[in-house]
Amino acid sequence: MNPDILKERQKATFDVEKLTNILDGGAEKTTRRREIESMVLSDPDFQEEDPNFLSRSERYDQAIRKSAQMILKLREYGIADPEEIYCYKSMVGGNHIEAVGLHFVMFLPTLYSQCDPQQSRKWLPLAESFQAVGTYAQTEMGHGTHLRGLETTATYDPATQEFVMNSPTVSSIKWWPGGLGKTSNHAIVLAQLYTQGKCHGLHAFIVNIRDMSTHQPLPGIVVGDIGPKFGFNEVDNGFLKLENVRIPRDNMLMKYAKVEPDGTYLKPPSAKLTYGTMVFVRSMIVRESARALSKACTIAIRYSAVRHQSEMRPGEPEPQIIDYQTQQYKLFPLLAMAYAFSSVGQYMYQTYHRITGDINQGDFSELPELHALSAGLKAFTTWETNAAIEVCRMSCGGHGYSRSSALPDIYVSFTPTCTYEGENTVMMLQTARYLVKSYRQAKEGQQLSGIVSYLNEADHRRVQPQPVAARPTVVDINDLASLVEIYKLRAATLVELAAKSIQQELQRRKSQEDAWNNSAIDLVRASDAHCHYVVVKLFTDKLGEIGDTAIHSVLSTLALLYALNGITKNSGDFLQAGLINVPQVLQISVRIKELLSQLRPNAVALVDAFDIHDKKLNSVLGRYDGNVYENMFEWARRSPLNSTEVHESFHKYLKPLRSKL
Amino acid sequence: MNPDILKERQKATFDVEKLTNILDGGAEKTTRRREIESMVLSDPDFQEEDPNFLSRSERYDQAIRKSAQMILKLREYGIADPEEIYCYKSMVGGNHIEAVGLHFVMFLPTLYSQCDPQQSRKWLPLAESFQAVGTYAQTEMGHGTHLRGLETTATYDPATQEFVMNSPTVSSIKWWPGGLGKTSNHAIVLAQLYTQGKCHGLHAFIVNIRDMSTHQPLPGIVVGDIGPKFGFNEVDNGFLKLENVRIPRDNMLMKYAKVEPDGTYLKPPSAKLTYGTMVFVRSMIVRESARALSKACTIAIRYSAVRHQSEMRPGEPEPQIIDYQTQQYKLFPLLAMAYAFSSVGQYMYQTYHRITGDINQGDFSELPELHALSAGLKAFTTWETNAAIEVCRMSCGGHGYSRSSALPDIYVSFTPTCTYEGENTVMMLQTARYLVKSYRQAKEGQQLSGIVSYLNEADHRRVQPQPVAARPTVVDINDLASLVEIYKLRAATLVELAAKSIQQELQRRKSQEDAWNNSAIDLVRASDAHCHYVVVKLFTDKLGEIGDTAIHSVLSTLALLYALNGITKNSGDFLQAGLINVPQVLQISVRIKELLSQLRPNAVALVDAFDIHDKKLNSVLGRYDGNVYENMFEWARRSPLNSTEVHESFHKYLKPLRSKL
Repeated sequence: MNPDILKERQKATFDVEKLTNILDGGAEKTTRRREIESMVLSDPDFQEEDPNFLSRSERYDQAIRKSAQMILKLREYGIADPEEIYCYKSMVGGNHIEAVGLHFVMFLPTLYSQCDPQQSRKWLPLAESFQAVGTYAQTEMGHGTHLRGLETTATYDPATQEFVMNSPTVSSIKWWPGGLGKTSNHAIVLAQLYTQGKCHGLHAFIVNIRDMSTHQPLPGIVVGDIGPKFGFNEVDNGFLKLENVRIPRDNMLMKYAKVEPDGTYLKPPSAKLTYGTMVFVRSMIVRESARALSKACTIAIRYSAVRHQSEMRPGEPEPQIIDYQTQQYKLFPLLAMAYAFSSVGQYMYQTYHRITGDINQGDFSELPELHALSAGLKAFTTWETNAAIEVCRMSCGGHGYSRSSALPDIYVSFTPTCTYEGENTVMMLQTARYLVKSYRQAKEGQQLSGIVSYLNEADHRRVQPQPVAARPTVVDINDLASLVEIYKLRAATLVELAAKSIQQELQRRKSQEDAWNNSAIDLVRASDAHCHYVVVKLFTDKLGEIGDTAIHSVLSTLALLYALNGITKNSGDFLQAGLINVPQVLQISVRIKELLSQLRPNAVALVDAFDIHDKKLNSVLGRYDGNVYENMFEWARRSPLNSTEVHESFHKYLKPLRSKL
Repeated sequence: MNPDILKERQKATFDVEKLTNILDGGAEKTTRRREIESMVLSDPDFQEEDPNFLSRSERYDQAIRKSAQMILKLREYGIADPEEIYCYKSMVGGNHIEAVGLHFVMFLPTLYSQCDPQQSRKWLPLAESFQAVGTYAQTEMGHGTHLRGLETTATYDPATQEFVMNSPTVSSIKWWPGGLGKTSNHAIVLAQLYTQGKCHGLHAFIVNIRDMSTHQPLPGIVVGDIGPKFGFNEVDNGFLKLENVRIPRDNMLMKYAKVEPDGTYLKPPSAKLTYGTMVFVRSMIVRESARALSKACTIAIRYSAVRHQSEMRPGEPEPQIIDYQTQQYKLFPLLAMAYAFSSVGQYMYQTYHRITGDINQGDFSELPELHALSAGLKAFTTWETNAAIEVCRMSCGGHGYSRSSALPDIYVSFTPTCTYEGENTVMMLQTARYLVKSYRQAKEGQQLSGIVSYLNEADHRRVQPQPVAARPTVVDINDLASLVEIYKLRAATLVELAAKSIQQELQRRKSQEDAWNNSAIDLVRASDAHCHYVVVKLFTDKLGEIGDTAIHSVLSTLALLYALNGITKNSGDFLQAGLINVPQVLQISVRIKELLSQLRPNAVALVDAFDIHDKKLNSVLGRYDGNVYENMFEWARRSPLNSTEVHESFHKYLKPLRSKL
């Protein structure tokens, strides 16, 4: 063990194991998680080469091997609980993505939820036994966010009782679905349904794309890999061009909508059902944000404790870089954010599960709020985390740029969350739509409940932009409840500003749509402030559940740092709304510095509490034992360019060059 | 040509070619640049495979081949002007880095500047004829920023008149130098010189690391590639471990310091000489920021004009996404920033060359200011550009994540600039040191000149943090001169705040060093504000040189957007210092929206004016003709995973899996 990091651990003021238990949701859960992780660790079948040393094709190959192994092992060990499966998979996957993930995450669940009984009898055994390996093909080359814009067609032919599937344009080629390129032999294809000369909009169809025995693409199917990406090298995101592909009528998923043999179309009873899935996925992404950020902080903070650099006082040894105020200021607010997002992730997960029961009984009353919240929080947490991972990487100096740090892998695996499952700006605007609607309802005298109830408060409490000096400021910068209050008032101000912007545009005779578009900047800002308030509030609420005094104390420091740092970064908003005054801005700066010093002795312990196993972190900089440099050297020597002492290019190009000069 | 992008070009209100000439520094320069670019374009020897389709070893191989070709061609065509060489190289390199770059950028220049006459006669012919291929080995695994911390030793042995070179620890292994791993047979090694029992600090030594004929590493040399990185896949950044390697006495570069045969050490006359090189390199990085950002903006803005998505008004076709206010707000401020940084890059380049003459004549008077400025601006522009490239990437939706967009390559090639040639936070603190020193000098009554002269202004003009209402605000938000003024006053306020923080720490009996470290957050903030002021000022100054009315008008709009957007993003600072008031913050938001609309018709023309050839941009999304989707499909089909219809992993893992389930 590196002596610096050992010393750091001795300085901790709280019991790390207890905090780990809190993060896991209980001591039993920690135990079970570690049991599952050790199954992977001790399993020789999961021995592997660092994917960074492999070619794209070798990476894909290794990932498929691991996926196949994993399917067998999960059955062998009888692991069936989704949380436990998740835990097993993320230990196998490390910082990389599972190759056949979409079969489990989209193909099977869609079959479960949208097959009619007869279809279930046919397809589920095929899919569960892996005869049918599938994916979910929705996005097209020219169409993502706007589902109605999808161009793929499924035209019913009553003469043969088949659908004829087509990609009528280049932009209609299915593009991006994971596992589509090489792995899957089936795809659930979203297409515009035409029957009896009429378009009935998007429906889902099971299309057999490769021969189930030879795996060759079937006639009319042009399928392949979409090529190298920023990351996701393990995954064969694919394209699919359909050229008059005929599929039987009952390959349309018919639990809800139906096409009868003669081509008669029967509408589905309700469209609300996919709503819940989106909420679930977005809530999961919030948890992923917390996890990715926890990894990045673990690496950057441990390495900052081990790394010595420069000179603080002449003649003294180089200090640990974690002792530089600028380094603390880069990393500790991100550490606080990781804890904040963990609380939010737990809340979203619990809330989703709480109201799932209601939804199954047809009670959708809580869904709109959760839907709006999950959209905005997905965007808020992924954007923040995305930027934060890069700050962590760059805080490691040059070595952060090496793949051995794992930070590049963490970044490229995480960054797509800003785009997929709802592009972030679109998500922010969805939340804004809910906020403006709620604001108007409150304005019309309705009593709002839930997290937007702050929009209720009587007009005189609502904040108007006005000079700071005109408003008495009562905020106590050391009191979290008081800070939650001003975050709330900031959100209220910005929602009102956005709503008024729309109003003004309408008064200038703009259409509803143009008024909305011309206010979009304000709307995104309002959503962002709303989400920021929710995060500060949920983090603060979480503290109420913590019994252990030492842990309560350190988490309170983190929460205070998170809240005050957010005010500093957005001080214009708070000043503008008269929620703080100028002397307080200066006090907050001073207070932040104090909080950094206060957190300093616990920094390593706070990342240790995330309890991310070395094998999962896969970072030479973030190793638990702090033995960074020996291991970096070991890792580098395994680089494929070192497999020969002299690279062939010397003989091919460099040596001949001499004689030509 | 895509009809949307054609329409965009027809809407432009100015002459694109004229703006290109301004950016190039004159019409003749544009012509010459294009001549050079077309030499590469039409040259079959530079035909290549997209590096994204190659393995690391193949990428390195292709890069070496191109470098060797390039050396021959440059001689053949007699291209010798550094600017023209740069232009040729960047056309060959595209978004990737040159493999043997350090031979030209560091090895040769160091020989030119630090060899004594006898050494020059020996080494220059070897290096110029490529017998000796070299690199510059300074950083070590555990040491980067702090040169005095380097551990490599060169101990003089008078008995044999040799230096004995050693890497005494793991952390002392040379790490990161480009071309060190596989390409170079020589390295200039920075090492602590020991002679007659005394350490004389860092000196430079020429070490032969590989046999000049077989290219095998020589005895005592452990050398290799440091392994895969985030980017720079073409470059064999390397490690070098020295184990009692003996080199002749005259392999120490002796133009300044010397070791005599008996071991007597002779000090160099002055240490100021490396100063100029650092300034030059950092100034070049500022230009690189402008170029990288121009590329990213070109891709994102062209694609936003071509891409249609969602629905603004029900029933109407999907609009171009550049018509969404949120998309304009993402991209147009970055476009303005690209133009701002271009002005700054030109200024730095010209200033450096202007004062180089003075430096050569021993007049260093302007160097400290330029040194301080280049440090801060290097950090400011690279941080801003770094974040901006990612905003551009994400503004392209999912396709930005594909390597076919080129945005991942642009990002990973650019992001090391935040770390190398002076880590950004360290750079900001260097600039802050100059600012605080200047502030104190002004306080003591000295009259400052140059860009920090604003610190001179009489005390009553200096801004004190105070309530907004107490100060009369006179800024005209439509007048650039007025905005430059408040940026200046913001910088003055923050420099003063930082200086006072140090003062307060000292009053609490902290040492100078602790006072500095405890004020580091404020110091970085002050530097940042200073740089921001300089950028706004230089961009505004640039407008004065523009004669063409139409171009002057559109660049003024960009400059105004740049300035106002910066105020919005930092409104807390401006409010706090009483430089703007709350109603003005709201006016600025409205004004920014107007500027976005005003720029909308010129957006594509403004990126066209950067005149980045398709071959250099290498982006399917950013193509000049806008034919994005056909070309994306073509590109994807060339993906190596598509070289066979069925990947071997199907037979190895997926098919066998079925029978086991």
